[in-house]
Amino acid sequence: MRIAVVAPSCTLKREAAERVTAIAAERGDCEVMIHPQCFLSDGHFAGADAQRLAALREVMADPQIDCVWFARGGYGSNRIAEAALADLPPAARTKSYIGYSDGGFLLAGLHRAGHEVAHGPMPQDVLRDGGEAAVTRALDWMVRRDASALEPGIQAPAFAFNLTVLSSLLGTPLEPDLTGADLLIEEVSEQHYRIDRLMFHLTASANVRSVARIRLGRVGDIPANDPVFGRDELAIVTDWCARSGIAFGGRADIGHDAANRVVPFGQTTP
Amino acid sequence: MRIAVVAPSCTLKREAAERVTAIAAERGDCEVMIHPQCFLSDGHFAGADAQRLAALREVMADPQIDCVWFARGGYGSNRIAEAALADLPPAARTKSYIGYSDGGFLLAGLHRAGHEVAHGPMPQDVLRDGGEAAVTRALDWMVRRDASALEPGIQAPAFAFNLTVLSSLLGTPLEPDLTGADLLIEEVSEQHYRIDRLMFHLTASANVRSVARIRLGRVGDIPANDPVFGRDELAIVTDWCARSGIAFGGRADIGHDAANRVVPFGQTTP
Repeated sequence: MRIAVVAPSCTLKREAAERVTAIAAERGDCEVMIHPQCFLSDGHFAGADAQRLAALREVMADPQIDCVWFARGGYGSNRIAEAALADLPPAARTKSYIGYSDGGFLLAGLHRAGHEVAHGPMPQDVLRDGGEAAVTRALDWMVRRDASALEPGIQAPAFAFNLTVLSSLLGTPLEPDLTGADLLIEEVSEQHYRIDRLMFHLTASANVRSVARIRLGRVGDIPANDPVFGRDELAIVTDWCARSGIAFGGRADIGHDAANRVVPFGQTTP
Repeated sequence: MRIAVVAPSCTLKREAAERVTAIAAERGDCEVMIHPQCFLSDGHFAGADAQRLAALREVMADPQIDCVWFARGGYGSNRIAEAALADLPPAARTKSYIGYSDGGFLLAGLHRAGHEVAHGPMPQDVLRDGGEAAVTRALDWMVRRDASALEPGIQAPAFAFNLTVLSSLLGTPLEPDLTGADLLIEEVSEQHYRIDRLMFHLTASANVRSVARIRLGRVGDIPANDPVFGRDELAIVTDWCARSGIAFGGRADIGHDAANRVVPFGQTTP
């Protein structure tokens, strides 16, 4: 199992790269190759659009690579997603793709184009408290589709998205078909009023209203609201589900943390 | 000319209410009536949804009122916009509506429903440096459709929106038809990477791609980006316009500041 790490969004920390390659070497069942593009820096991004796109297209086209692993989130994969999906080489279809957060733009587009994709921990997550377990979980899914890595409640077709990313996908050529979906959402570093506005946007969408249910992952690192918003993320999400006639399916075991579980997109799960 | 002030979003400051009613009294050509709902507070909002909705519906239905003026922005008008537009009383159609920022949710919905609406300064703006001129500009438009209050470059059909609000409108029942529009956008308190993501979302929309041109108002109070984003709002907007084949029409004289000009929606301008 050969896993290539590229960074379509922000720059990967070298310490994370070293620890993840060491974990893979210790396992002995996979080889993690960190593309040098991961360490580039161009303002906000891990290199200019053309550099991030070239690295991604390179590993997608490489028949020796079994899995493409997004290095980390941040922001920027949307800027290269459409170009990444144009004239896909045959080798791109024989591999799987894993990441989350900003990587959701690419996951959505790759899934639409018929590729196997999954929401799951990324190499930079190794730097979190308990991050080795997160990375191991992702590798367990990549190497042997280990069912224990999966979010325990998912019912196919499942999707998992950062709330802001999903809102930004609506109406774009990357938007997933959510008909009948078990839709898992999570968020980080957004105030409660923003979460409320995002849920307004999401639940007004006919596509989102076609889901089987929405489940709420963790919403981490919420900046203070001034004045205090007056209701928490669970109350916000259940309120908008009720207003829009969408079934709320309870909490989901995903989020910007080391406990984040794997959610393969769309397909029937083991 | 009787002008009713209600607060569909956040609570109006009493000092602003006093100064605005004094300005109107001094003019002698209009009467500004501050609805007591403006001073309610329920968490983030100027009263609960039901209270904000009731005040708005009350002044919409009042045949003695010529103009409904939104007290201020913040967040929350989207939560009551659909209900505000249901079963509109005939008196609602004989008046005009003015506001901006979060008020854009209501302006969009009211415009769709055939009402006369305009982006323009709000009562709370009187507290800004030079705020008396902003409020006077709004009153000049309300009272006598003074052309000097208008954004000088607008070509009908024109629309003006806060970028985040317009992004949150896409795909909802409130979304305006932007065909052939002179679309003016402005933003406040959003980091450059967020502005970039909003422009990705906007310019992917077929509706937004049908505009005649996009013009960029002011983007104020931009929080620091870590790392530095590497391009400013003008570069971001021109880049996404170029990528999506939308004409960029230059800068616009609107924003979250005292210089903010009036943009009547849709209609032929004087």
